[in-house]
Amino acid sequence: MQGTDAHLGWGEHARRRIASCALFELYAVERTSARGKTGEFWVLDAPDWVNVVPVTTTADGEPALIMVRQFRHGAELITTEFPAGLVEPGEDPAAAAARELEEETGCRAGRLTPLNTVLPNPAFMNNRSYTFLAEDLTRIGGTKLDELEALEPRIVPVAEIERNLGTGEYVNALTVLGFLWYRSRGAAPR
Amino acid sequence: MQGTDAHLGWGEHARRRIASCALFELYAVERTSARGKTGEFWVLDAPDWVNVVPVTTTADGEPALIMVRQFRHGAELITTEFPAGLVEPGEDPAAAAARELEEETGCRAGRLTPLNTVLPNPAFMNNRSYTFLAEDLTRIGGTKLDELEALEPRIVPVAEIERNLGTGEYVNALTVLGFLWYRSRGAAPR
Repeated sequence: MQGTDAHLGWGEHARRRIASCALFELYAVERTSARGKTGEFWVLDAPDWVNVVPVTTTADGEPALIMVRQFRHGAELITTEFPAGLVEPGEDPAAAAARELEEETGCRAGRLTPLNTVLPNPAFMNNRSYTFLAEDLTRIGGTKLDELEALEPRIVPVAEIERNLGTGEYVNALTVLGFLWYRSRGAAPR
Repeated sequence: MQGTDAHLGWGEHARRRIASCALFELYAVERTSARGKTGEFWVLDAPDWVNVVPVTTTADGEPALIMVRQFRHGAELITTEFPAGLVEPGEDPAAAAARELEEETGCRAGRLTPLNTVLPNPAFMNNRSYTFLAEDLTRIGGTKLDELEALEPRIVPVAEIERNLGTGEYVNALTVLGFLWYRSRGAAPR
């Protein structure tokens, strides 16, 4: 934290674990502000995430992206999202992106380029979400899903995503962000 | 859920509350898939959120947006984000947006227009995030913060946000999404 920002800072003096599951650990932390206010804040300690924007074409040669349809247990509905998942301990985010792409779509990317890195929810989560552009795709097999995953990959024309963005099944924030970034800014210079 | 999607569905048969705080309640739910797999999933039951993109100009007449700087307890760092907050029980999202704008920046909007609605994290959260464009701003007073809030509003030139998006303090996913949407798609037709 920069010196000039000390007045916005908070110091931590206690932390206890409330709960733990595969996706995150929940902690209650006690912190005191530079202005002397003390409070308890709940934070999720979560692994980093990856999202992949896999570039392809339809059978008619239209620009398209590969997305996955699945039931989402939080929102209790079926969404269409980019392939995504957790970065495993010690795993490089690019390796995690390649692995998730392969597991969820059966495709391998000849080229994987960072699009952006964001914090999904800095207010109460401590993790990052990395988004990669995946190009030069080769189909190498079928999906390889975890025991409790049930999803279907689908080639979606870019025009169809553009038209439906923010509606129906195209409402996952990180998918919408990834698509807007891909359309309006593209990959960082290589 | 549409009939053709029954094979992607999951049925819930048990739910227990693990923990509860001001931001969310954490539940463990037991669900069985159409293919007969049973698992326990953790979900956060959270109030809806609002984000506000407040349009203004710098003293030099440059296009600018009002953002807020604050320490974020999840990420443990200072971020620059759009004014945002929770929708209160029974509150209209537009009213919540107007209220948060006023509390965090001291400004009232002459016009508030929906930009988009997304699901912050459908994998394990059930809430929505509404983003509004706020125009025709009038300063009506100072900030009105909760006891444990410490933040500073700041007028940031659009060009500066554009240049720094996805880096440094400009990394909150919903802020990045809101900015990209504002720049590339604007408000829905009125």
